[in-house]
Amino acid sequence: MFRGEQLVLDHGFVALEDSCADDLSVVNAARVSFNAHHLEMEVGDDKLIGFLLKNRHGTPFEQNFFRFRVKAPIFVFREWHRHRIGISINEWSARYSELKEEFYIPDAEHIRVQVGKPGQYTYEPCDKTTALFFQAALTTHCEKSFKYYKEAIGMGIAKEQARFFLPVNVYSEMYWSCNARSLMNFLSLRNAPKAMWEIRQYAAQLENIFREVMPVTHQYFIENGRIAP
Amino acid sequence: MFRGEQLVLDHGFVALEDSCADDLSVVNAARVSFNAHHLEMEVGDDKLIGFLLKNRHGTPFEQNFFRFRVKAPIFVFREWHRHRIGISINEWSARYSELKEEFYIPDAEHIRVQVGKPGQYTYEPCDKTTALFFQAALTTHCEKSFKYYKEAIGMGIAKEQARFFLPVNVYSEMYWSCNARSLMNFLSLRNAPKAMWEIRQYAAQLENIFREVMPVTHQYFIENGRIAP
Amino acid sequence: MFRGEQLVLDHGFVALEDSCADDLSVVNAARVSFNAHHLEMEVGDDKLIGFLLKNRHGTPFEQNFFRFRVKAPIFVFREWHRHRIGISINEWSARYSELKEEFYIPDAEHIRVQVGKPGQYTYEPCDKTTALFFQAALTTHCEKSFKYYKEAIGMGIAKEQARFFLPVNVYSEMYWSCNARSLMNFLSLRNAPKAMWEIRQYAAQLENIFREVMPVTHQYFIENGRIAP
Amino acid sequence: MFRGEQLVLDHGFVALEDSCADDLSVVNAARVSFNAHHLEMEVGDDKLIGFLLKNRHGTPFEQNFFRFRVKAPIFVFREWHRHRIGISINEWSARYSELKEEFYIPDAEHIRVQVGKPGQYTYEPCDKTTALFFQAALTTHCEKSFKYYKEAIGMGIAKEQARFFLPVNVYSEMYWSCNARSLMNFLSLRNAPKAMWEIRQYAAQLENIFREVMPVTHQYFIENGRIAP
Repeated sequence: MFRGEQLVLDHGFVALEDSCADDLSVVNAARVSFNAHHLEMEVGDDKLIGFLLKNRHGTPFEQNFFRFRVKAPIFVFREWHRHRIGISINEWSARYSELKEEFYIPDAEHIRVQVGKPGQYTYEPCDKTTALFFQAALTTHCEKSFKYYKEAIGMGIAKEQARFFLPVNVYSEMYWSCNARSLMNFLSLRNAPKAMWEIRQYAAQLENIFREVMPVTHQYFIENGRIAP
Repeated sequence: MFRGEQLVLDHGFVALEDSCADDLSVVNAARVSFNAHHLEMEVGDDKLIGFLLKNRHGTPFEQNFFRFRVKAPIFVFREWHRHRIGISINEWSARYSELKEEFYIPDAEHIRVQVGKPGQYTYEPCDKTTALFFQAALTTHCEKSFKYYKEAIGMGIAKEQARFFLPVNVYSEMYWSCNARSLMNFLSLRNAPKAMWEIRQYAAQLENIFREVMPVTHQYFIENGRIAP
Repeated sequence: MFRGEQLVLDHGFVALEDSCADDLSVVNAARVSFNAHHLEMEVGDDKLIGFLLKNRHGTPFEQNFFRFRVKAPIFVFREWHRHRIGISINEWSARYSELKEEFYIPDAEHIRVQVGKPGQYTYEPCDKTTALFFQAALTTHCEKSFKYYKEAIGMGIAKEQARFFLPVNVYSEMYWSCNARSLMNFLSLRNAPKAMWEIRQYAAQLENIFREVMPVTHQYFIENGRIAP
Repeated sequence: MFRGEQLVLDHGFVALEDSCADDLSVVNAARVSFNAHHLEMEVGDDKLIGFLLKNRHGTPFEQNFFRFRVKAPIFVFREWHRHRIGISINEWSARYSELKEEFYIPDAEHIRVQVGKPGQYTYEPCDKTTALFFQAALTTHCEKSFKYYKEAIGMGIAKEQARFFLPVNVYSEMYWSCNARSLMNFLSLRNAPKAMWEIRQYAAQLENIFREVMPVTHQYFIENGRIAP
């Protein structure tokens, strides 16, 4: 267990392992333009943060650090790892150690139907019978996949090849470090109506943590239409 | 078919779609330090490239461009996409369109056993009986996985959830752009004895293309012990 | 002389030395999401580019390359070099070779007065007498600075220390490589009303070149309010 | 005054304003490969850090953060700002506020002569008479430059143009954030015999701070020949 784990999906979590971030660091990074420096947030500093966000002065939001521990299915990490700037990743290796028998099986109410044209998809809930059938079939399939995986390892096959049996909803874990600017970019894209529902659940937890650590920055991020500077 | 496709594994390929790269660009990028400029490679320019590589003057190797089209299994892309610097990626989306029934099934002679301790693994060929059994079981499993995937889509389940049936050896495609510096970094890590055999097959084809496009740079990359600047 | 030099300020220029970029590369990078590929721009492709820009799908605009040769004063490069992402730089070294006696002396009509409060400065033309006085004083000062620089070198002082006499308006040269996404980011910030007038002259020339090479992308960049994706 | 200011050159300093870094974070970032986690450094963890550095496993050294406040002459910042990866910068703006009358005048014993060929320069002390003459001339020149700068501002000229009188040895200040990997890259290039003497003085102070914060990582950085992973 990691301190402060926020549970996500059926087996996942997000935890802030460590950070070095506050609203004051934004103010001071901006004020260095005038060679000024504050010891604590002063009157007007809130508005300065709003001004910076609105006018796309992005660098003052980089002078801070968040390190998260995240557990999520591989298909979620596949999207997550496309973020490259101001980001560091270390992930559990299925080449070096065995994965656990943990697969993401969506709740019946989150099994969905794709509606509309490419680029403009919306999603609606599936009918219940189909959802339950999908859930059951997926659960059975994942169990079998894991059984084959273990058997292949048992026969001596390298873990990096035995995993070919495992589907993309198997869980993995990673450390993910970022700064407030790269985090806001992530939130603007992933805690958004068009984002895949599963990654959005993670992004929503990240946003809760961000709000606690940098409340003024978060407030103006919202007021600025959730656009990262 | 993409022009110049180099086949890799059972269904994959690497193709250089376009590039803007030659050894001369390295020389000129370095010579701008002295505000000098050459119209073609001159005597001594080869050695200058060797000097730059050996002394870790990396930036002259960034003033160029390669755009590749790559088809590879997801577990290979999972490693590939960890490279972040000087890299651009656009990949086939299994949220937006259906994947094809193409899975990586290793040749019997490349099914392997993991030997040794973590961090120091080596790999040896599997005995033939085990290899054939693994191959057959994996083939059957992949066929079933794809059948479930198509059935789920047929039932109306969103493609982004139907894919939970698909294992990590399913093929995908991407555009991958880089420069000679980021490419050498990739080659030094992935066309290397410790790299996963499958990604190494791709890296070897990338290296062939790199050798053709920038022969002098490649020659000194080799002489410098395959260390990227 | 570099082919296609576009003159900027009194001694500067921008030249596109090489590129590997067109609108089609954007379309194909986007279409790989559906595993589709076009051989030339087709009906609807223009609108796809507009859609991508508007919805901040930035990566398809990275699959291309521009290499510029630029001559500009150091105070301009000081701003220019803050751009870090998707950018490569090689610059003339005043440690290794002597700089030339070329200083930026602004035209009388571009010598200006700063009006308003920090963060909201505007600029107005200086009165003519002051402008001429400033010009003359600066010209004399730069000539003396260069004389001291040469004398210090003549006395054997290392070039890297002799340059301490040189002001920040001395000219330098560099190679600057980028892609359409990083270029649009540069243009949105530097070819903008709030940008420093001198760097804006360079950005305007870069934008002319960008418009020629990727006309559709440029058109939608304008329609999208000059916001980079 | 910033806490912990380490004085550098005649008016400069380096101060660690905040950090989120220790050797344990490296170990845990590496151990996530095996889904393992330590609460404190254990037997063998030192060697793991050495193994990672030697074998160029760079990412575990990115899961941490240092924020420095730095005061240095512009010609030093010109080199410093070429570092782009894992780096954030906010600097005093001479467009928005007036610079102070602080110029770097080298000590007589650090005024030097350049010996040898380009790419292989070495430096030797200047004879004392020349050094004293250079010092005196530079001091006078800087005083005059600053007088012209103030006069131009007094006449109403915009600060961003008035500064054209100022030489590249004028002091500026910045925030500079990095992680241990980007810091080691900086140290390997800038706290090195071939580096410019002035930037090396800054790099040496950064290295002292790095040694205190991450002693095991630093020790193996040295043992690994000061090559960053």
